[in-house]
Amino acid sequence: MDAYLIYTVLAGLLALIFAFVLSSSITKESPGDGRMAEIAGYIHDGSMAFLKTEYKYLTIFVVIVAAVLGFLVSWQTAICFIFGAVFSIFAGYFGMNVATKANVRTAEAAKHGQSKALKIAFSGGAVMGLSVVGLGIVGLGVAYYVFGGNIDFITGFGLGASSIALFARVGGGIYTKAADVGADLVGKVEAGIPEDDPRNPAVIADNVGDNVGDVAGMGADLFESYVGSIISALTLGAAVFANKEGIVYPLLLSAIGIIASIIGVMFARNSKAENPQKALNSGTYIGGVIVIIAAAVLSNMVFGNLKAFFAIAAGLVVGMAIGKITEMYTSDEYASVKKIANQSETGPATTVISGLAVGMYSTLWPIVLICVGVLISFFVMGGAQDTMMGLYGIALSAVGMLSTTGLTVAVDAYGPIADNAGGIAEMAGLPKEVREVTDKLDSVGNTTAAIGKGFAIGSAALTALGLFASYAHAVEITTIDLLNPITLVGVFIGGMLPFLFGALTMESVGKAANEMIEEVRRQFKEIPGIMEGKGQPDYKKCVDISTAAAIREMVIPGILAIVVPIAIGLLLGKEALGGLIGGSVTTGVLLAIFMSNAGGAWDNAKKYIEGGTHGGKGSYAHKAAVVGDTVGDPFKDTSGPSMNILIKLMTIVSLVFAPVILQYGGILLNMFK
Amino acid sequence: MDAYLIYTVLAGLLALIFAFVLSSSITKESPGDGRMAEIAGYIHDGSMAFLKTEYKYLTIFVVIVAAVLGFLVSWQTAICFIFGAVFSIFAGYFGMNVATKANVRTAEAAKHGQSKALKIAFSGGAVMGLSVVGLGIVGLGVAYYVFGGNIDFITGFGLGASSIALFARVGGGIYTKAADVGADLVGKVEAGIPEDDPRNPAVIADNVGDNVGDVAGMGADLFESYVGSIISALTLGAAVFANKEGIVYPLLLSAIGIIASIIGVMFARNSKAENPQKALNSGTYIGGVIVIIAAAVLSNMVFGNLKAFFAIAAGLVVGMAIGKITEMYTSDEYASVKKIANQSETGPATTVISGLAVGMYSTLWPIVLICVGVLISFFVMGGAQDTMMGLYGIALSAVGMLSTTGLTVAVDAYGPIADNAGGIAEMAGLPKEVREVTDKLDSVGNTTAAIGKGFAIGSAALTALGLFASYAHAVEITTIDLLNPITLVGVFIGGMLPFLFGALTMESVGKAANEMIEEVRRQFKEIPGIMEGKGQPDYKKCVDISTAAAIREMVIPGILAIVVPIAIGLLLGKEALGGLIGGSVTTGVLLAIFMSNAGGAWDNAKKYIEGGTHGGKGSYAHKAAVVGDTVGDPFKDTSGPSMNILIKLMTIVSLVFAPVILQYGGILLNMFK
Repeated sequence: MDAYLIYTVLAGLLALIFAFVLSSSITKESPGDGRMAEIAGYIHDGSMAFLKTEYKYLTIFVVIVAAVLGFLVSWQTAICFIFGAVFSIFAGYFGMNVATKANVRTAEAAKHGQSKALKIAFSGGAVMGLSVVGLGIVGLGVAYYVFGGNIDFITGFGLGASSIALFARVGGGIYTKAADVGADLVGKVEAGIPEDDPRNPAVIADNVGDNVGDVAGMGADLFESYVGSIISALTLGAAVFANKEGIVYPLLLSAIGIIASIIGVMFARNSKAENPQKALNSGTYIGGVIVIIAAAVLSNMVFGNLKAFFAIAAGLVVGMAIGKITEMYTSDEYASVKKIANQSETGPATTVISGLAVGMYSTLWPIVLICVGVLISFFVMGGAQDTMMGLYGIALSAVGMLSTTGLTVAVDAYGPIADNAGGIAEMAGLPKEVREVTDKLDSVGNTTAAIGKGFAIGSAALTALGLFASYAHAVEITTIDLLNPITLVGVFIGGMLPFLFGALTMESVGKAANEMIEEVRRQFKEIPGIMEGKGQPDYKKCVDISTAAAIREMVIPGILAIVVPIAIGLLLGKEALGGLIGGSVTTGVLLAIFMSNAGGAWDNAKKYIEGGTHGGKGSYAHKAAVVGDTVGDPFKDTSGPSMNILIKLMTIVSLVFAPVILQYGGILLNMFK
Repeated sequence: MDAYLIYTVLAGLLALIFAFVLSSSITKESPGDGRMAEIAGYIHDGSMAFLKTEYKYLTIFVVIVAAVLGFLVSWQTAICFIFGAVFSIFAGYFGMNVATKANVRTAEAAKHGQSKALKIAFSGGAVMGLSVVGLGIVGLGVAYYVFGGNIDFITGFGLGASSIALFARVGGGIYTKAADVGADLVGKVEAGIPEDDPRNPAVIADNVGDNVGDVAGMGADLFESYVGSIISALTLGAAVFANKEGIVYPLLLSAIGIIASIIGVMFARNSKAENPQKALNSGTYIGGVIVIIAAAVLSNMVFGNLKAFFAIAAGLVVGMAIGKITEMYTSDEYASVKKIANQSETGPATTVISGLAVGMYSTLWPIVLICVGVLISFFVMGGAQDTMMGLYGIALSAVGMLSTTGLTVAVDAYGPIADNAGGIAEMAGLPKEVREVTDKLDSVGNTTAAIGKGFAIGSAALTALGLFASYAHAVEITTIDLLNPITLVGVFIGGMLPFLFGALTMESVGKAANEMIEEVRRQFKEIPGIMEGKGQPDYKKCVDISTAAAIREMVIPGILAIVVPIAIGLLLGKEALGGLIGGSVTTGVLLAIFMSNAGGAWDNAKKYIEGGTHGGKGSYAHKAAVVGDTVGDPFKDTSGPSMNILIKLMTIVSLVFAPVILQYGGILLNMFK
């Protein structure tokens, strides 16, 4: 094993050790008593039940795909694929397991003030974050070593990660919103009981959903981006440099990013800041600064110049800037959310219209920023003279953006833990002061969630672009000509797929929510004494409904994302497939930004009104804002984030199946030649 | 003048003569008496007032752009530009003038039964349709002759048409929805008076809006597509054929299309079918069959084979199929609308979500059809061996799709005339039987409007693709490489622009509607006796508000559409601009389909419920459906159709400014070289 590889794997192991230590420190805390422990137990069991069912189907899926890969591509790729899938599963399992223990301990700690509660919730998130990067880099490093540095096989690792992300993010998104909408519509609207009321049979599924969607789903999404960006840098690095520097640099930079993340986590965890947001920010900024400095030193050491540093810095800065812009469109401290709240006064239609307009408008700056990042990293590496070298620069900027993924996921997974803690406090009937602490932690989580979503989209875009370049290299094409109508057809089909994906996932949420609604209605009617708090609701049934729906509704979108690229490649050839990737990345990113930000803005417009403006809770404006929020639910938590998965999955499928496309591609095309 | 050119211009003149005859026949009919004539007078005057204001600003705009063109490109291009603008203005003026006379005469004729009313309404639409194609082809033919067949100058004609389309379609879209929403929200919701009530000060503006948006706007949109498709075929035809056959064929085919349209109009006009839809369809099918047969004969005569025929047929069939599919997603006879109506039972949020899902889903088949059309017309002309020849095939398919534009616009412009007739009947207090006739005519108009929108989008896509190829030829590039990050940046920016355009136009409607709301409220409060029908509402003030808003709110989107392509071309070069066109056409078409169909589906779901399902008018489901319909208003009548203009305008701007881009393009790029 070369020294750089040893360092890389060691950094990953360090992250895992640190995650383990954090996890033990959480487990040691008091899980509360009686009612609290009982409720937390339901949530924990529900989460694990979901994972168990998911893994059952995943096993079948992984076996089939591995067989196809072994048969069509190579057995080494198939093994890497299994490897990638298993490592992503481990990360999700570990993270979820700890998150569903941290939630109740956060609630318990909230009895003694904010500081300790924040520490536990953030530590829970950090376990997920460090597991993601630790397992990602260790898995990649080992696979790289085992297969003697043959990058072609390693792409299988990325496909494995993508497959799990599909299940976790798309399935998780359907799960969480089916439970949420079902719990709200029957519980809050029809039965008139408050949110997080233990009499509501869907309340546990709702809390499980937060973990499934925002902890496991987000984790798998960024696990995929993380390993995808590194794979793309390795593929291109191997192609453009005669020696190993093109591989050494991204691996060592990722190693440093992990160390920076660990330091950032420690800082945030021990921050004395009164404002939880500031504590979280301090960690993020410190991590970023460390990476920036290290990237410069490393660039000079490995390449003898600072070009690579500028590419890394461009990625990191663009990632942070996209997060900030996302906040500006979705936080009630800025004009957009206030405008939506204002429009709520003229009813639900104008609320919806203005939210849609905000979402569409919010695509402007993230796209400009991504373009600027792409141009800087391309030109600074000398892309004007050597295109492949420039593409390597773009891949590096993705690695830079994702270098502090450990921190990003930690901050992001903190949100659902705090949210759960609030739910448990409410359900267990803890005193008002406790609820106030958890509410404060929760509200910070909403902002971090929106920022995290923006970051996930930006990183998915850059990762997909890097993998796109890798794909072109793999199928041995140096141009994908947009003037060729075959390419244009690919762009059109690719551009349409995210719309189709969005429609399918939105309809899935609707269907699953309807099943949930009927089940909750049935329980309210049939279980004696349920409304008086004497009869025990059948939480498990609701958890099962969400679980079954999530798995079932994921099948068609999942098959589409895998089959369509291969089919287009086989029928219309590798240029058309290149067009398809280009088209899908473009509209996928746009729809992701549009839907996530519209959803986030509606959500916060509603909360802004609940804060007492425009007549406050129960007013006409508030009712209109609730409609906007409900429309935004599948937007921001299901369809929007699913776009990240779609574009990365389609790109990596194309990359992995490149040898097949190269050999058999263009069947229809050849008929006319 | 060559024979083929003489035939072409003669066919155009024939269309104009026929339009004139139809127009005279309408004017001869009785315009009704007293109250009817008075109301119709307000609508007519309001329409003319809008046109007058529009022309004032247009003159300034045209003079400035012509000066820029003369200075930067050539004085011949500038003259062609003025020519194109003036001819499009004539078409719009002539069509609107007759439409606002046909409306009241349709209402009067409805007193004596459906048959004559249908004849007048359709004749009014046919005047618009035949004016569009007649003026389009005569203008093009004359410009072509005057400038000795130099195609480069003729592109200016297309830019002129595009500029007017921008004012008519985008401005018109804002006009009509500001008036509609304003009239509804205060009149129907707040004051509780019915639709089309003469006491509502915004009611005239609302009826004017139908003419401004759906007669003049749609006409200008298709005028642009019509001349754009021919220009693109001429540009490419001149490039790929040594002799003139590449020019003769599209011109003669267009001439035949005009004759076919005239025959179709006569058939539909004199149809004895009881069902108005069948009467309109009969004309469309007959026109299509004539063109198909003629295309085959002509193909054999001009080229000695049937290749060009297949390209034309592919375009024509795809155009009709897209219309049919649009109907399937937006008519209440199919599942999608029924599903939305069903979801209305659980409230406005689920109504909105399911409508959005339907809209997104509805992108699938139109895109597949466009791709199939592109592939057929490309391969059949031999694109696999000769790319330019294949591109010419795609341009021909656009010409084929648009060959019966005269009929399409006739059917489409029939809708607002029937709608207006209903409004006049209501306002003048005509008997119930009359209103029943106009209602029936109106309901057919809703379907034709949806189909027309689908057709407009499909034709805009094909026209833009043809012009895209012409652009590449003009800037002397043979490949636009998607692997080049500069191109990708272009694609990203281009892909984002339709989202931005959508956001801007939706917000414009909101702003303009708010002004209208305040004015209507003011009049209700300040004009004595207005609610008792004694005080005269100030209709003109409302017309002025819509007019001013339409002109004002159009400025920023318009500037964007013109300046961004030129700026990207100058800064990042001709490949990036090519990417920008590709990206904007892709997302522009997708958003246009999504928004138009979602809007159409919501509209008809509401009407479906009003027909007595799900509790009928006034039920909870109906209230939810009204929310969906209101959200859909700017979707289907402003932002959606604006996309057509955006993509065509940006493409033709690029084509016209090709010489400038060729000489100075890529300033930023060259700095890094």
